[in-house]
This record gives sequence, structure tokens and C-alpha cells, in this order.
Amino acid sequence: MIWETIYSHAMEWVKEAGKNIRQSFDKTLDIQTKSNQNDLVTNIDKETEQFIIRKIKEHYPNHKIMGEEGFGDELVSLEGIVWIIDPIDGTMNFVHQQRNFAISIGVYENGVGMIGIVYDVVHDEMYHAFKGRGAYLNDKKMPKLETASISEAIIALNATWVMPNHRIDHHLMIPLVRDARGTRSYGTAALEMVYVAAGRVDAYISLRLSPWDFAGGAVIVEELGGIVTNLRGEKLNYLNKDSLLVAKPGLHKTIIEEYLKNGEW
Amino acid sequence: MIWETIYSHAMEWVKEAGKNIRQSFDKTLDIQTKSNQNDLVTNIDKETEQFIIRKIKEHYPNHKIMGEEGFGDELVSLEGIVWIIDPIDGTMNFVHQQRNFAISIGVYENGVGMIGIVYDVVHDEMYHAFKGRGAYLNDKKMPKLETASISEAIIALNATWVMPNHRIDHHLMIPLVRDARGTRSYGTAALEMVYVAAGRVDAYISLRLSPWDFAGGAVIVEELGGIVTNLRGEKLNYLNKDSLLVAKPGLHKTIIEEYLKNGEW
Repeated sequence: MIWETIYSHAMEWVKEAGKNIRQSFDKTLDIQTKSNQNDLVTNIDKETEQFIIRKIKEHYPNHKIMGEEGFGDELVSLEGIVWIIDPIDGTMNFVHQQRNFAISIGVYENGVGMIGIVYDVVHDEMYHAFKGRGAYLNDKKMPKLETASISEAIIALNATWVMPNHRIDHHLMIPLVRDARGTRSYGTAALEMVYVAAGRVDAYISLRLSPWDFAGGAVIVEELGGIVTNLRGEKLNYLNKDSLLVAKPGLHKTIIEEYLKNGEW
Repeated sequence: MIWETIYSHAMEWVKEAGKNIRQSFDKTLDIQTKSNQNDLVTNIDKETEQFIIRKIKEHYPNHKIMGEEGFGDELVSLEGIVWIIDPIDGTMNFVHQQRNFAISIGVYENGVGMIGIVYDVVHDEMYHAFKGRGAYLNDKKMPKLETASISEAIIALNATWVMPNHRIDHHLMIPLVRDARGTRSYGTAALEMVYVAAGRVDAYISLRLSPWDFAGGAVIVEELGGIVTNLRGEKLNYLNKDSLLVAKPGLHKTIIEEYLKNGEW
């Protein structure tokens, strides 16, 4: 069965890439900036992406690849089998903290998520799912997500979204934060998504992410019954940047209908 | 030398308490609320505080004790040797995440911090300092803190403080967040303080904490040259609730002088 082989290959390569990253901690990082001074990239991001792409090309030359650092293909559609890769999600954490970052991979077939892997490299925690076969944290099967009320929910979101910003009317966000039990911000979309999957937070909100940030986590969350859409409640399109709302099933509906849907944005 | 014995006792008891907490994960928690519905306390918070207090009383019957859960003494001064204990800092994380919480202990002599211990129970990371003898993460000595600029700083603070709130004019906080490289929020003062000590974040801000939240972390941060005050830049008093600004040396001054000091609050 080809998908089982892809699944075990993907996990094996991610593990190996993680080992390489851990070994890099003693070396000097070459840190560069991309779109702005806080959009960081390092030689390790690039080497990790190249390592994974080399493996994919060697074993699956017909698969297509979208990678954050641009070593994959220029994709105009999601036809066929597409690997969507973030070699280091949370590069700022990687640089400042040497923890709280992840390797994220989603493998999609004609736009449908088949395999999702998010590997918390430093804590050696591999979150993974194969569509229809359950989601796991290392070898432990994760339970299905149950709903949560806003008043008992912890929501992961950055402080930026409750102050005036260019992406959402912060007056929509403030009541949500007030009504929630608490908020957290970890600075890595891939891990914040799997924290929803693992029940550590109840929802995660971000206003501007790229497909490689959410492609892996989405498969894992959806496998457990969690809901993954943009902040308008629409299905994500894995070719474009978008906002993101990941939440437990009933909570997702509450956030969209009671807090976000009436806004002008 | 009595202080060396106190130091090793404190670490030994915290380790043992942490082991008990880890073993409690399989049992059912008894969760209650305190001052409001989001101010949680569990039987494990109480048992942990009682365990540590029992040890202190057995070995140091003349020492005074202030504990979050109220099993210590009613203190009106900091004269003598005072243990300030938070059995579980980050109880909400403990309940929701079974991680990202800490045992915190500060031992003070006539108001001067002599020993600080913050134990990240799940990750088995013990941050500890003995005044004048350096600060350690497990067995590894932590380096002195160097300054950081706002533009390259990661600041730990909760989203609450950049939206209208009762404790600070949020218009003072917004420019700080805009100028920083990024913000994070982990939901545990003790760990957020030692994250400053370990250089994972550059500053930590909170508007309302109790002595047991910051007494342990303060000794560790100060031992490394970091600055610990309230948000007015004043020395903390370990008998009262207060706001908190913990930061690398030059950054602390910048935050007070360029962002906070002109505010009416």
C-alpha cells in the first residue's frame, strides 16, 4: 500500500531531520531576514528543507513539493500528490529559544489531506495522522476532541490581534478574549494546531499564515474531529495565504457565529 | 554552613514534590475555583504545599512560611528567614495541559532573596540560584544576561494587557508590543521569569501577581544581572500583590523610560 509507505517514510525523514537540527545547536547560526526584520530564516531552515526534498525526489520523483524556503516546485494546482513542508515552523523561537519549533509536513492528494506530521524537535514529540486511521502523539493514540464552552476555553492567539492591526477589526477579538478562560501564545502555528489536537488549548487563531504553516497540523486536527477553516469559516485553500481558526467542534461554531461573523473585515 | 543545607533541602523537597505531581496525572483531579471562575486550585496544589511545609517545619521550625494555598503563616513582616512557596504556579496549565507549570520557592532573609528555585515538573528542568553563587538550569551554569534592544526583543505578556483593562492604560502597552520583535504568553509567571533568566524571552510583564508568583524567579533572574521591579520601576515588596517587569538590564530601563513612565496609571 503506497500510502503506508509514504507515511512511514515521512516520519523517518522528519525524525532524521530533527536529529540533525538538534546537533546544529552547538554550531553558529547564520540568521537572515526575509519579508521584514522579524521574518527570520537560518541556514538550518534551508538545509532541513533541502534534506527532506532530496529524500522525496529520490523515492517519489512524480510527487510535487511546496516548501517554505522555496526549494520545492512552483505550484499552480494541488492535483496529484503534493508534499507541503515547513522545515522549521517557529524560526523566531528556534533562534531565540532553541525550543518551541517544529518540522511540519502535510501530504495531500488532489487537495485532500492524507498525512499530517508535526514534530516538536526538542521535546521529541511526533504528532502524526493518516486520514481515517487516527492521530497519534508518538505511539499514543490521541482521543477524539469533545466540545468546550468559551468560558472554559483557552485560546491560543497573539496579542497583536487584540490591538489595532491591518487584518481584523480588533473590536471583534476583544470580547472573545474577555469571555475565554485564558489566552496563550507560543509563536508557532504548527505546534499551536497540535496543541488543539492534544486538548492543551481549545482553539487557535491566526490572521496570516501560509499553507506550509497549517498543512500538516490540519490533517491531525481534522482526524480528531476538530474544525479547521479561515476566520470567515471557509475551507482553507492550500495554495494561498489565509487566516486560520482551529477549534474543538462546537467551539468553532460559537466563535464564528457569536464573535466573528457580524464583523466588517 | 546553614544556607548550603537549606539550598540542598529545598531542591530535594521540590524534586520529590514534582515526582508526586507527575504520579498524580493518572488520578482524577478535584478542581475548585478561588477568587473567580478562572482562578483554579486543585487537591494537588494543596497536597504539594502541605508536603513542602511539613518538611520545612520538621527541619527548620523557626523559619516562617508564606504559601499560596494558605497553609503557611500569616506574615506581617519579612524579618528572619521566610520561605515563599507556590506549590503549582500555572494551575490553569496544570489542569488543561498537564504541562507548563512549576513549583516555585524563594527563601528570603530579612527581605533579601537568598535562594530561588523554579522547577518545571514535566520537563524535569530545575532552575535554581543561591545568592552570589550563580544560577543553574539543572547542573548547567547559566550565563549572565546581556542587554537587548526592543526591536530584537521577545516579550512575554498576556493579550489582556493590550486591550482595555482595569490595571494599566493599554495605550502605553501597544507601542511596546508594536516595537518588539514578538510577544509570547505561557500562563505561568514563575516559568516566564526563568525564561528571561535563560534568555528565551527578553522581558516578562504582568499586571497583577502575588509574592509567591515571583519570589523564586526573582532570585534567579537577579543572580544573572536581570532586573526585577514593578511596572513603575520600584523594588518589589514581598508582602503584597504587585505588577511585575522582569527584563535584561538595558532593556528594563528602556521599557520603563521610553514606554511606561509617562503614563497616568
